[in-house]
Amino acid sequence: MQIARISLESGPRYAIVDHDTDEYIVLAGDPIFQGLDTTGQRLPRKGTRLLSPIIPRSKVIGVGKNYMDHIKEMGGDAPEIPVLFFKPNTSVIGPGDPIVAPSWAKEISYEAELAVVIGRPCKDVPVDRVDDVIYGYTAANDVTARDAQRAEPQWARAKGFDTSCPLGPVIDLDYDPAGKAIRSTVNGELRQDGNTNDMLTGVKELVSYISHAFSLLPGDVILTGTPAGVGIMSEGDTVTVEVEGIGELTNQLRTS
Amino acid sequence: MQIARISLESGPRYAIVDHDTDEYIVLAGDPIFQGLDTTGQRLPRKGTRLLSPIIPRSKVIGVGKNYMDHIKEMGGDAPEIPVLFFKPNTSVIGPGDPIVAPSWAKEISYEAELAVVIGRPCKDVPVDRVDDVIYGYTAANDVTARDAQRAEPQWARAKGFDTSCPLGPVIDLDYDPAGKAIRSTVNGELRQDGNTNDMLTGVKELVSYISHAFSLLPGDVILTGTPAGVGIMSEGDTVTVEVEGIGELTNQLRTS
Repeated sequence: MQIARISLESGPRYAIVDHDTDEYIVLAGDPIFQGLDTTGQRLPRKGTRLLSPIIPRSKVIGVGKNYMDHIKEMGGDAPEIPVLFFKPNTSVIGPGDPIVAPSWAKEISYEAELAVVIGRPCKDVPVDRVDDVIYGYTAANDVTARDAQRAEPQWARAKGFDTSCPLGPVIDLDYDPAGKAIRSTVNGELRQDGNTNDMLTGVKELVSYISHAFSLLPGDVILTGTPAGVGIMSEGDTVTVEVEGIGELTNQLRTS
Repeated sequence: MQIARISLESGPRYAIVDHDTDEYIVLAGDPIFQGLDTTGQRLPRKGTRLLSPIIPRSKVIGVGKNYMDHIKEMGGDAPEIPVLFFKPNTSVIGPGDPIVAPSWAKEISYEAELAVVIGRPCKDVPVDRVDDVIYGYTAANDVTARDAQRAEPQWARAKGFDTSCPLGPVIDLDYDPAGKAIRSTVNGELRQDGNTNDMLTGVKELVSYISHAFSLLPGDVILTGTPAGVGIMSEGDTVTVEVEGIGELTNQLRTS
């Protein structure tokens, strides 16, 4: 099952994606907190605007240096333990929303990633219990101001500015993250072409590790790192992140 | 005027501190969003348990290296621009709550700081308009796992673990942050004795700078940096942060 968040005249709503009829089935509430009761309303997918499928109430946690080929292209070494950082919820946007480069950043890079959405309050979760706390999976673009990342010791500004966290298009609730392609294109040209099997620290180990660092809450999002092929975008470029089985997340770069 | 958040049998409530009668005047709602309507209920301050006066919905932003004497004791250089990092809302605790050292950290340090509470959604705020977006001021302890901070390039884990952000005792709405003493004691012994006038980047400039990095939302908290005198605590130590005019924030260190 896949969950979307859509923009209706009455406001944002969650919906189930009905792939058979190519429709959205509107939900009564937020499915993480209120389950899957439907309103009865159905809408064609075509022409319905998607929003970020989740607005984190607590945190987005990013993982740096989790694919060896990306570590090599950045000129670093593999970390002994996962490199964790935060993106604030003010950085989250949805499919089709513009990525707006801040005035202080000249080099805006895309980073295609598989994202985990947490479903339950949890802490110190053993690796073999991680599936119990995962709500589902989505795709993310860990947009990064590469010049600010180089110049500043902490990545809060470089990875936390408004619009730096596109999420979507949907949350897949029955997803197996093993062996999935992670790709990005810029203006239709392939840039990243990785596979989740190449993560240095796998999804279950990451979620367990992070749950030992911080309590996780429903709606928290974990970005699992990006493969090689990152690069700087120009104003007007369109970037698409594709995570196999989840779909495409497309955003255009604008300058502020 | 000073605002507290207190624990009643019916749940947490906000309250105005009445210094004349030494009472709390209970508020009907969250004063940042719902104003200062009172319920009519009054409670003696003595015996009433305080909670963190704010639960950030979006972010706590920390500022590293903002007092020269602290930079010198840590062996670094003054940064050219403020060093920003995030603490998640899962790290926030209130006066009297225990600081719980995670199992992976051996060196837990206190850092006494003046904290700014944001009152309005804002972005790109000029220095001379910063007062318009500040709700008030409180005290903070930017508790840090110093061994993890040394070992890990990003500070998310070292400064973001559960209980690493004591806030309180109250939010002062009419506070002038100039020339205020910032102190900490451990088991009653003075450890830090700084003054807000010694910040490298002052409060207004910091809030303006940070508002150019991220949109700020009501309830966001900015920790403005710590003066010299930080040090490692032992299990059972009691640390008190005192910010002149705001009061004392006391927490005890426990191991998990």
